[in-house]
Amino acid sequence: MSLSKRIPIFLLRLLALGATVSATLVMITSHDSAQLFNMKFEAKYTNSPTFKYFVLMNAIASGYTLILLFFPSKSSYGHLILILDLVMALLLDSSISACLAIGQVGKNGNSHAGWLPICGQVPKFCDHVTGALVAGFVAAIVYFLILLYSLHNVMNLFLLKT
Amino acid sequence: MSLSKRIPIFLLRLLALGATVSATLVMITSHDSAQLFNMKFEAKYTNSPTFKYFVLMNAIASGYTLILLFFPSKSSYGHLILILDLVMALLLDSSISACLAIGQVGKNGNSHAGWLPICGQVPKFCDHVTGALVAGFVAAIVYFLILLYSLHNVMNLFLLKT
Repeated sequence: MSLSKRIPIFLLRLLALGATVSATLVMITSHDSAQLFNMKFEAKYTNSPTFKYFVLMNAIASGYTLILLFFPSKSSYGHLILILDLVMALLLDSSISACLAIGQVGKNGNSHAGWLPICGQVPKFCDHVTGALVAGFVAAIVYFLILLYSLHNVMNLFLLKT
Repeated sequence: MSLSKRIPIFLLRLLALGATVSATLVMITSHDSAQLFNMKFEAKYTNSPTFKYFVLMNAIASGYTLILLFFPSKSSYGHLILILDLVMALLLDSSISACLAIGQVGKNGNSHAGWLPICGQVPKFCDHVTGALVAGFVAAIVYFLILLYSLHNVMNLFLLKT
C-alpha cells in the first residue's frame, strides 16, 4: 500500500486507540455510592456483566489497535487485517449497544418490569458511564470508517485492474 | 458475478431472511401476564424500547434481504451492496447485543441496582424473547458469512488480476 493511503489509516487507528483507551479507563473509574434507608448502595462497573463486557471489548480493541499501529504493513496480510477490523467493529458495536440498553434502564427505569432508575441516587456513576459510551461510540464510528476506507481501496484497485 | 458464486450468496440470503422474519415474528408475538399482589402485570415487547429496537432492526433487515434476493446483480452495484451488507450486519449485531443485555437482567435481575428478575413471573414471555434472540443470532452470523464470502470473492479477484 502506498504511503498516501497508509497515512489516513494510521491517523484513524490513532483516533480509535484514543477512543477505546478512554472508554476503558472512564468505565473502570466509574464509581459512586449513596445512602438509602440505612443501606449503603455502591455503584461500580463490576456490578453489571454488561459493563464488564464493555470494558473487556474496549481493552481488546485497544490492544489490537496498538499492535496494528506498528505493524509492518504487508499486502499479504491485507485480507486477514480487513477481517480482523470487521470483527473488531462488530465487537465494539455489540459492546456499546448492550451498554446503552442497560444505561437506558439505569436512567429511565422500566415501570412495567418494576425496575427503578438509579441515576438519581448515583449521578457520578451515570456520568462516567455516559462518558464511556460516548468514547465507545466514537471508537465504533472510527472502526466503521477504517472498514469503509479499506474496502474503498480494495475495490478501486480491483476496478483499475479490470 | 458468475452463477457458481451467486448461488451460495442466494442461499445465505434465503437463510438470513428466514432468521430475521422469525426473530421479528417471535418477538412481536411474545406476551404473558401474571397476577402479583392484586396487580396485573403484563409483559409484551412494547414495554421495552430495546425490544422495539430489536423488532425494527429485524424488520428492516428482512425487507432489505428480500429485495436483495431478487435484485438483478450487476457488478456496478457490488460496492454499494457490500457496504449495505456491512451496515445490516452492524445493525443486527447491535440489536441482539442490546436485547441480550436486557434479557440477562430479566432472567437474573441485578441485586446491586435493586432490579428483580421477571422471568419467574412471565416464563412464556421470556421463552419468546429467548427464541427471538436465537433467531436474531443466526441472522447476525449469516450476515457475517455473507460479508466474509463477498470479501473473499473481491480479494481473490483482486489477487488474480495483480
